[in-house]
Amino acid sequence: MLPWDAEMAGQLHRETIGSTLLRGNPLGDPHERPIWVYTPPEYSARPGTRWPAVYVIQGYTGHLSMWANRSAYKQPFPETADAVFASGEAPGCIVVYVDAWTAYGGSQFVDSPGTGPYHSYLVDEVVPWVDARYRTLAQPASRAISGKSSGGFGAMITPMLRPDVFGALATHAGDALYEYAYVPEFAKAVRYLRAYDGDIFRWWEDFRSRPAFSAEGDGTLLILLGCAACFSADPDGTVRLPFDPVTGELVPERWQRWLDWDPVRMVDRYADALRSQRAIWIDAGTRDEWYLDVGATAFRAGLTRIGVPDDRVHFELFNSGHAGIDYRYPQALTWLAHRLER
Amino acid sequence: MLPWDAEMAGQLHRETIGSTLLRGNPLGDPHERPIWVYTPPEYSARPGTRWPAVYVIQGYTGHLSMWANRSAYKQPFPETADAVFASGEAPGCIVVYVDAWTAYGGSQFVDSPGTGPYHSYLVDEVVPWVDARYRTLAQPASRAISGKSSGGFGAMITPMLRPDVFGALATHAGDALYEYAYVPEFAKAVRYLRAYDGDIFRWWEDFRSRPAFSAEGDGTLLILLGCAACFSADPDGTVRLPFDPVTGELVPERWQRWLDWDPVRMVDRYADALRSQRAIWIDAGTRDEWYLDVGATAFRAGLTRIGVPDDRVHFELFNSGHAGIDYRYPQALTWLAHRLER
Amino acid sequence: MLPWDAEMAGQLHRETIGSTLLRGNPLGDPHERPIWVYTPPEYSARPGTRWPAVYVIQGYTGHLSMWANRSAYKQPFPETADAVFASGEAPGCIVVYVDAWTAYGGSQFVDSPGTGPYHSYLVDEVVPWVDARYRTLAQPASRAISGKSSGGFGAMITPMLRPDVFGALATHAGDALYEYAYVPEFAKAVRYLRAYDGDIFRWWEDFRSRPAFSAEGDGTLLILLGCAACFSADPDGTVRLPFDPVTGELVPERWQRWLDWDPVRMVDRYADALRSQRAIWIDAGTRDEWYLDVGATAFRAGLTRIGVPDDRVHFELFNSGHAGIDYRYPQALTWLAHRLER
Amino acid sequence: MLPWDAEMAGQLHRETIGSTLLRGNPLGDPHERPIWVYTPPEYSARPGTRWPAVYVIQGYTGHLSMWANRSAYKQPFPETADAVFASGEAPGCIVVYVDAWTAYGGSQFVDSPGTGPYHSYLVDEVVPWVDARYRTLAQPASRAISGKSSGGFGAMITPMLRPDVFGALATHAGDALYEYAYVPEFAKAVRYLRAYDGDIFRWWEDFRSRPAFSAEGDGTLLILLGCAACFSADPDGTVRLPFDPVTGELVPERWQRWLDWDPVRMVDRYADALRSQRAIWIDAGTRDEWYLDVGATAFRAGLTRIGVPDDRVHFELFNSGHAGIDYRYPQALTWLAHRLER
Repeated sequence: MLPWDAEMAGQLHRETIGSTLLRGNPLGDPHERPIWVYTPPEYSARPGTRWPAVYVIQGYTGHLSMWANRSAYKQPFPETADAVFASGEAPGCIVVYVDAWTAYGGSQFVDSPGTGPYHSYLVDEVVPWVDARYRTLAQPASRAISGKSSGGFGAMITPMLRPDVFGALATHAGDALYEYAYVPEFAKAVRYLRAYDGDIFRWWEDFRSRPAFSAEGDGTLLILLGCAACFSADPDGTVRLPFDPVTGELVPERWQRWLDWDPVRMVDRYADALRSQRAIWIDAGTRDEWYLDVGATAFRAGLTRIGVPDDRVHFELFNSGHAGIDYRYPQALTWLAHRLER
Repeated sequence: MLPWDAEMAGQLHRETIGSTLLRGNPLGDPHERPIWVYTPPEYSARPGTRWPAVYVIQGYTGHLSMWANRSAYKQPFPETADAVFASGEAPGCIVVYVDAWTAYGGSQFVDSPGTGPYHSYLVDEVVPWVDARYRTLAQPASRAISGKSSGGFGAMITPMLRPDVFGALATHAGDALYEYAYVPEFAKAVRYLRAYDGDIFRWWEDFRSRPAFSAEGDGTLLILLGCAACFSADPDGTVRLPFDPVTGELVPERWQRWLDWDPVRMVDRYADALRSQRAIWIDAGTRDEWYLDVGATAFRAGLTRIGVPDDRVHFELFNSGHAGIDYRYPQALTWLAHRLER
Repeated sequence: MLPWDAEMAGQLHRETIGSTLLRGNPLGDPHERPIWVYTPPEYSARPGTRWPAVYVIQGYTGHLSMWANRSAYKQPFPETADAVFASGEAPGCIVVYVDAWTAYGGSQFVDSPGTGPYHSYLVDEVVPWVDARYRTLAQPASRAISGKSSGGFGAMITPMLRPDVFGALATHAGDALYEYAYVPEFAKAVRYLRAYDGDIFRWWEDFRSRPAFSAEGDGTLLILLGCAACFSADPDGTVRLPFDPVTGELVPERWQRWLDWDPVRMVDRYADALRSQRAIWIDAGTRDEWYLDVGATAFRAGLTRIGVPDDRVHFELFNSGHAGIDYRYPQALTWLAHRLER
Repeated sequence: MLPWDAEMAGQLHRETIGSTLLRGNPLGDPHERPIWVYTPPEYSARPGTRWPAVYVIQGYTGHLSMWANRSAYKQPFPETADAVFASGEAPGCIVVYVDAWTAYGGSQFVDSPGTGPYHSYLVDEVVPWVDARYRTLAQPASRAISGKSSGGFGAMITPMLRPDVFGALATHAGDALYEYAYVPEFAKAVRYLRAYDGDIFRWWEDFRSRPAFSAEGDGTLLILLGCAACFSADPDGTVRLPFDPVTGELVPERWQRWLDWDPVRMVDRYADALRSQRAIWIDAGTRDEWYLDVGATAFRAGLTRIGVPDDRVHFELFNSGHAGIDYRYPQALTWLAHRLER
């Protein structure tokens, strides 16, 4: 393997999708979005064959182009994904790389008056668009979604909301159990916001005016602003934090809106949808900085509680923090590829 | 100042108090307790004078004898306390050092079937014992309580529960806003307990069998075990954790019992008691590892909300973590000494 | 700015250069190397004009393709570089992105029997290749080199060794003062190597057999292996560590070979070369994890000592660690662009 | 075990020793020093018996009184030492707790014009004083010295310098291999001194004027100031740092004076003295913040190199950092007690 580039056995089609739903979204983000569709090695050689599809989404502050980023001694996921098909380790799949970036760094793949209808965009626009242009097996049993971190969150909730669209999922260190993943961040945010009189929009203005992430609190504040836009915006789009930015006290009704989006707490409400999934991959590093290993454990326990059979679930904690776990993606992809109906 | 010892201007009386209430306590801790009573420089020279009293309590894992610990370039609090009186910086007070240690490292100064009636011991046994033996001004307006960390917590809640006993307080980095102070510890505990099948009593057995604090999680698990014994024990003394030790999920009714002891959440319930205080000192380091600066800010805001006049409150955040803030104690003592009725 | 891509005002030419010198290099790395040459906005419109050239090199584990990596709220350097020319902030330059990757993650831009003649490749092959194909001003006064970390090191030493080629430089957190930058890493390496019986090649074998950087010591051991290959290899290419991997004791003659490559210690030996430079930019973050701010300060002081006039030097420490300082590159580029002869 | 106090089986005699050598020492420290001498359980019952003696010294910033400090779930060393004799685990010894505090926090147990003749004080005044007053076996084969950190350093060098006095030693995480233990501290010091124009005495003045250790760099700067006073003071007592406080560059001749005191580098010079020792205990935590586990390994390897027989050496690395390892002291004491001649 040379570090600079690689030839793939399959083909990566870099396209643009024009969304109707995202038109006029509240943050002024483009409604024309990049999308990459990967077709496996034998795709053109077997013109009569239809293929399962795995949708891949990014984590917070991730956007589509970052899938092409290269680093030392590692290949980007599109190449490691290609490799599992090229080697025969996994039966061929179409892999769809979806962009749901917003000006705040992400959409959490939900519909929100604070950011836009990114959930609907994904299930009602992207999926049909792909099915119309590529030879997919257009049914939930042959359609999976996977991601890491906020992408893992999206991979958990999307099939819960729309089991008629997705029938399998993989979550790597997906956001869950918000008291551990988010609450400590609120306390940090209170500290960082002391320099901004407790006004996160004064921070946002500052952030946009200087090199990004050059101040210590930038990462924390950005994700909180973004999640508040996704989870607790007013109907008119006004973003509301789930805590008092000066005293740190939780604002119960807003915090409850966040908790309503906690995958662990959603399990019982969406039990049927989860029981309809063919394959659920859950993993996380045992030293995850957001305790997402604990969240993964609770989500796994929830599946047992509602009666998801053990043979449909892969659960694994491994020795790692939150970063540097991209080598897990092709493992989950392989596992899914074997379980999707074809 | 020499590092080895110091002569004090006042006198420290090291005594033992026999408690009736602590007899037969659930952890088998002694009911005979050490107690130190400091009398100020002019105490013997002015036999007709009565003095205000400041009660001083320890933080978690602190016990009475530790007040005598020496270190480099610092004097123990009994000496720095003596110094403010000797120098005339503060008018003389009696200072009472109370022990409320338990086998789990602390009592949180509450009455609990898990540890014993340490709150009642303090207000109903120690205070009368002191008043009977020393020339105190035996009234709440002349009686304060102060402490750091769990001791700061005790200093906040004791006057709330018993404004008929205490009329002033000082809390240094006192436990408050439990979602920030405790919740992240629960997630860490889940990790540490993986090696003990989620059973904190298996850890406890292990802890008692080897050098204390030689395993990474010891500090975290000890304080959680102790606080669970204080806050969420069953009536028969059985200790219950406020979270599932395997999945991390909060157990709502137990967690609520903890929250009922959150000073920030107690403010409204004990508004009259707080409004009756003559002097309330609140401080914390801006980098406190348990976010107790945020808790302090919320507690302070609560006082404003219920109408405690500003001139009775000293609030200060200073650049520090949780440790090494003992130099604040004599500052608060001086401030209190000037405000207690005499 | 959209996060996914950008149009540039100038042009980036992605080419391949065939090296004679790198043929048969000891690590079996390719002798055909990618190279990018950027020509500024007016390059084609002014066919009679020749331009200064700034050579840009990567830090350790950096390879050419990584310049294209995208991230949130930031543009890659080729785009921010383009922007300073497009906006008129800086007069146009040719910018040459050079690859000197090796199997060990880097070459330190030196000639070594352990890795290959990367210094000679850069000055004797890349520079003439560029001058032959692009309208450069082919003289040291119009040629600069810049980089960060190991790239900053390369930017310091290359003009010292070859002032006949380079007449200006910019170093961002460049390796210097090896007792602080490297020595602590040796101690860490001793610990990490305990699991490999002190044999770094057993670690290397392990590293190549599993996901890269999935073990804690990977980053430390990789850079030490690589630097040993660059600085203290035997004439036959055998790599020798500058310390005993079991006891940590320095091996004086090997450690001296490293110190001979310490830019701070090279200043006096290469005083004439340094005095010949038109422009020297030095910066580093005050919290640099390798203490390269201290190294930068010592290098700066060395320039004063040997009589480099102050007006040729830009020195700046800024509040940052080692990472996330790419926003400094266009600032240095602008500064150099104004000082190169044209 | 109760946390507040303990009864000992033996007796601890708290005395004062008047030193002639320390009179007029350069830092104005007292020449009257506290000293504690412990006599084992059967000492008075067997008036005709003489006992081996183990001298115990403190680490940096440690002074005699700190041996009495109490903490949670642990007993002070004088009590755990007593316990090994009381239980019969070890044959009885006299244990001598020596104070060598200075205004800079320590003396490193050397003779220096910067602090005073603390080495001579220990071997030429304290030892004879003890032998004159207590029934010791007054010979090196029956005399050991032990300590942790700087105390471990003292325990290594004192028998090297004076094998006629000490015939056994125990070092817990003793200072060694100064390139790892000290050099990184120099880089930190450069940063901390930026606020003091590079003048450590301006920091010292500041340190003495405010709560000790309330600024981040206090610990680092104090130990460097103190060690410079011990290792690289001028003959007239002027303290010289071994590095340029602005650029960080080592000052070779001064740094060499420090290295001359590196136990690892002293091994060959003092080979005879080391070969004369009956028992050498060496341990350290594998995560020691000053890499003293690496230093311990190198010191151990040095003993092998000079031919110290393996059966006289106990070497152990254990999972720990630098702090919280006091539970090791009674283990080493027991081991020494069995090996001292009686």
